[in-house]
Amino acid sequence: MEQVAWKGLFLSFFDYKTEKYVIAKNKKVGILYRVVQLSILAYLVGWVFVVKKGYQDTDTFLQSSVITKLKGVAFTNTTELGERLWDVVDYVIPPQGENVFFVMTNLIVTPNQRQDMCPESANIPDALCHTDGDCLAGEAVVAGNGVKTGRCLKARESTRGTCEILAWCPVEKRYKPKKALLASAENFTVYIKNSIRFPKFNFSKTNVLATNDESYLKSCRYSTEHRYCPIFILGNIVKWAGSDFQEMALEGGVIGIQIEWNCDLDKAPSECNPHYSFSRLDTKFAESISSGYNFRFAKYYQDAEGVEYRTLIKAYGIRFDVMVNGKAGKFNIIPTIINIGSGLALMGAGAFFCDLVLLYLIKKSNFYRGKKYEEVKSSSRKSLPTPSLNGNQSPDQLGGL
Amino acid sequence: MEQVAWKGLFLSFFDYKTEKYVIAKNKKVGILYRVVQLSILAYLVGWVFVVKKGYQDTDTFLQSSVITKLKGVAFTNTTELGERLWDVVDYVIPPQGENVFFVMTNLIVTPNQRQDMCPESANIPDALCHTDGDCLAGEAVVAGNGVKTGRCLKARESTRGTCEILAWCPVEKRYKPKKALLASAENFTVYIKNSIRFPKFNFSKTNVLATNDESYLKSCRYSTEHRYCPIFILGNIVKWAGSDFQEMALEGGVIGIQIEWNCDLDKAPSECNPHYSFSRLDTKFAESISSGYNFRFAKYYQDAEGVEYRTLIKAYGIRFDVMVNGKAGKFNIIPTIINIGSGLALMGAGAFFCDLVLLYLIKKSNFYRGKKYEEVKSSSRKSLPTPSLNGNQSPDQLGGL
Amino acid sequence: MEQVAWKGLFLSFFDYKTEKYVIAKNKKVGILYRVVQLSILAYLVGWVFVVKKGYQDTDTFLQSSVITKLKGVAFTNTTELGERLWDVVDYVIPPQGENVFFVMTNLIVTPNQRQDMCPESANIPDALCHTDGDCLAGEAVVAGNGVKTGRCLKARESTRGTCEILAWCPVEKRYKPKKALLASAENFTVYIKNSIRFPKFNFSKTNVLATNDESYLKSCRYSTEHRYCPIFILGNIVKWAGSDFQEMALEGGVIGIQIEWNCDLDKAPSECNPHYSFSRLDTKFAESISSGYNFRFAKYYQDAEGVEYRTLIKAYGIRFDVMVNGKAGKFNIIPTIINIGSGLALMGAGAFFCDLVLLYLIKKSNFYRGKKYEEVKSSSRKSLPTPSLNGNQSPDQLGGL
Repeated sequence: MEQVAWKGLFLSFFDYKTEKYVIAKNKKVGILYRVVQLSILAYLVGWVFVVKKGYQDTDTFLQSSVITKLKGVAFTNTTELGERLWDVVDYVIPPQGENVFFVMTNLIVTPNQRQDMCPESANIPDALCHTDGDCLAGEAVVAGNGVKTGRCLKARESTRGTCEILAWCPVEKRYKPKKALLASAENFTVYIKNSIRFPKFNFSKTNVLATNDESYLKSCRYSTEHRYCPIFILGNIVKWAGSDFQEMALEGGVIGIQIEWNCDLDKAPSECNPHYSFSRLDTKFAESISSGYNFRFAKYYQDAEGVEYRTLIKAYGIRFDVMVNGKAGKFNIIPTIINIGSGLALMGAGAFFCDLVLLYLIKKSNFYRGKKYEEVKSSSRKSLPTPSLNGNQSPDQLGGL
Repeated sequence: MEQVAWKGLFLSFFDYKTEKYVIAKNKKVGILYRVVQLSILAYLVGWVFVVKKGYQDTDTFLQSSVITKLKGVAFTNTTELGERLWDVVDYVIPPQGENVFFVMTNLIVTPNQRQDMCPESANIPDALCHTDGDCLAGEAVVAGNGVKTGRCLKARESTRGTCEILAWCPVEKRYKPKKALLASAENFTVYIKNSIRFPKFNFSKTNVLATNDESYLKSCRYSTEHRYCPIFILGNIVKWAGSDFQEMALEGGVIGIQIEWNCDLDKAPSECNPHYSFSRLDTKFAESISSGYNFRFAKYYQDAEGVEYRTLIKAYGIRFDVMVNGKAGKFNIIPTIINIGSGLALMGAGAFFCDLVLLYLIKKSNFYRGKKYEEVKSSSRKSLPTPSLNGNQSPDQLGGL
Repeated sequence: MEQVAWKGLFLSFFDYKTEKYVIAKNKKVGILYRVVQLSILAYLVGWVFVVKKGYQDTDTFLQSSVITKLKGVAFTNTTELGERLWDVVDYVIPPQGENVFFVMTNLIVTPNQRQDMCPESANIPDALCHTDGDCLAGEAVVAGNGVKTGRCLKARESTRGTCEILAWCPVEKRYKPKKALLASAENFTVYIKNSIRFPKFNFSKTNVLATNDESYLKSCRYSTEHRYCPIFILGNIVKWAGSDFQEMALEGGVIGIQIEWNCDLDKAPSECNPHYSFSRLDTKFAESISSGYNFRFAKYYQDAEGVEYRTLIKAYGIRFDVMVNGKAGKFNIIPTIINIGSGLALMGAGAFFCDLVLLYLIKKSNFYRGKKYEEVKSSSRKSLPTPSLNGNQSPDQLGGL
């Protein structure tokens, strides 16, 4: 007997249990449900599969290397500096050609600074003085260039003056430049070489067009017509970012160059191409405090006696940040199944919503509620429709998950 | 006839099919199920919607630009360097004011190094020698400063000496500084300007308070009271990162300044504000090998004869890394629906769990199993409750998904 | 009466409603369903939990700080430069020891450049001329070194020459080096210290082995046997990246050093270890235009009269990019529940698929369709199996979600 029962149990394990449905011949709810089903299907096919490519395994981790190289020379003739030619080594900082580079477009030069005593700049509020008592010896000038010596230096007939300081003398003259010195930087070009690799798919590419035509890559300039040319004119980059080069050259700024790789590796590798976009990163939001972009650096020298002196340069210019990001996708069975499964699971939510309508909102909801829910009580053994009144069939259902 | 059948099929397509339920009048399982439902609802509303803001489309890709500018001067008076004033150009490396900057707080200077022959430092094990034979000519000193010439230089009466090397001579003296030279760097300030942009939502902001009060932005200092002031005192940054400035100034270290933008764009833009946090990035974990942070650089000079010489500087100091990350969210119908749908789908899992209890764990599970599962066999055509024994109704159900 | 009704409603709220199932004694579909269930279970356990660790809350945001330090000296003896020793300060650019560093392996030196007039290099097409008319005064030479003065300089009997330019003179000689000057850089070592922190779990670690054996960390070299030694030989790094050092030293290139932290914080902290991988980032894809990696920089000097001159250096070498990424996971109840729930929801999709087979694809599908779908019509009140014909029981089902 027991063996038979176990056999029955084993066999019943492979019976297929399917949910029993009640057909409600209500066209309104029926149409509603079909609409819900259709929406979910449309969402699944349209959004998840076509737009979001849900059948693909994606990789957003990108190995990227950026090499930049500028080209261009500018000639200036000012009373301060005389005739001078500026080449790449002079105006690009730092020189390494990494993904962030700065092009100097304007500068204030203070040559021959030495460690000495001199009057502080009159523009600094903390350095103004009437008597020597205003200049506490040893105290650093707030937002200034040096340490007070204790003396107040005045012009002959003036009652006000500025404190004498120990500093790199003479101190820098504070003025806002009116015209960009290296205005011709607008025509300089930058060659941007970007090599990327998606390690998950072992896929590599560069933004340099694979061509045998060497002269094309030497003479081309990036534009909407030449999308795969990696040489950009600085003036164009600034224009595309929505700014004016001459204005930026005067006070400086930061420009972002985004390179986006959005690669569908189910297609041919030649379809995977970079997309460039340009934007100004330093918003001109707060005009008040140090708008633009500038910094100071110095060239240090020693004279014949071994005494150090320096040329201080306040450099205004445009910093370019090359930012690379990307995503690659390739067909994979797991995300495909997951997405289909989740979509179907969503249908359950749709059915739940339609049930609410059927059972509580329509006129005959009372009737349908009675049909949908079959009441059973363990005490009342007289209910007719149950085909399983005998105790024997219990093992048959044991596998019923 | 056929036309009628097709019409029936079409109409039945819009019949609503709903699952038939069995009401088990068992309060225990009923309460259990309500508890499960409530938990899922609480999770959905509380966690998914309120905490994780599941109704929003989010963007974690951030365009960020950081401009930093230090202010402060320090005066030192040592026997080695004499009286000297240090300004921003002297102690900040690199000078560009990017998101990573180094403030030199201590240094070992070796002036007037020339390419020459001199004894290697006695601290380097590989350079110790007894005879010339210990110094193989042309061999580089391991972890040393030059290439051996083949001679062993000894003090007059000593039996041990160090190899003579071809190097930048004299070589740097190896000693650990006892006191930070630029201890007053603690009071220097740094102005950090961070402009961000979420390209997906076309939303830009900076961390500089939008105010007309220029003097506020010039005189304010960041603190818990002044959260939107972008000027930080270096000493405070180090303190907030849990370190001691004077200790760090001696041996160097790396401090991370995180700026986090967590923006709910359903609210007003003025609610989107940066949150700063500070941490020490170089854990003092392995004390043994080169703890702290230092590096060597040189200033190169030429004498009147055109011979190059240099001043070697071993710089100790604090490197500050400004790291920006952020997330923006805005209401979007698609994630809202997805999250509600997934939450409802989870209820199915809850029902499954309660079914297990009802059918296998409670006393009357046998009875309920019989009610839940209705056995049908294609051979036994006598079962009463099925209302669909006639073959005609088959097309009616064809649309039954 | 009403009170009784409300009480009934309240009690019925805690009735458990469970779906009614039909047992189809069809072994084929039954086995199919079990297979589908098993696959989903296998996917859930195997993929979601074991491989993807779906029971963990993960953090991919990593605070990382990289400090690099090179060691090694090289001796060269060329006709141009004479005997010269190169130490770290000479060949590493920039000197700060950040995550990106460049090791100079080859260079072309142009000493004593001054602002002057001289003939442009003959290799530049735009500078070739027959008459002075070919050299428009004031025009910059395309891809050249200076601005034309208007004169065409020819050798004595030649008909062709090059334009005279105002530039840093003499201009650099253009030639491709045949042999790497600092070939011995292959034996230089780099110490890479990487401290990471997962802020979400407040977990910190460094890649430096926690050992008391100081001499080990000074003498060890990273290899497959010494995985926790942070000192790398440059030649090995290049070899592991699949390139030849001597070849790269000649023309330059970019090497990526990935450090991956994949930490299971449910295990001991000592199990969380970095994994290094090396790859060449500048693909040798487009040979044509400036393959390799080089840049120019200059050292500026002033002579006794204060006139500036410079030594131009075209540096070839290898740029190393240390890239850190990581992921930490720790057990958390929420993702665990979500993942189990989603897995069970997927089972619904499996049942849907098996239903399709049962109802439309097998022989007796007609019969099963009749069993699964129970037709109800509000007009026909004679159908036997419904136990709820009396209108009273309506409140009983109100809670039936």
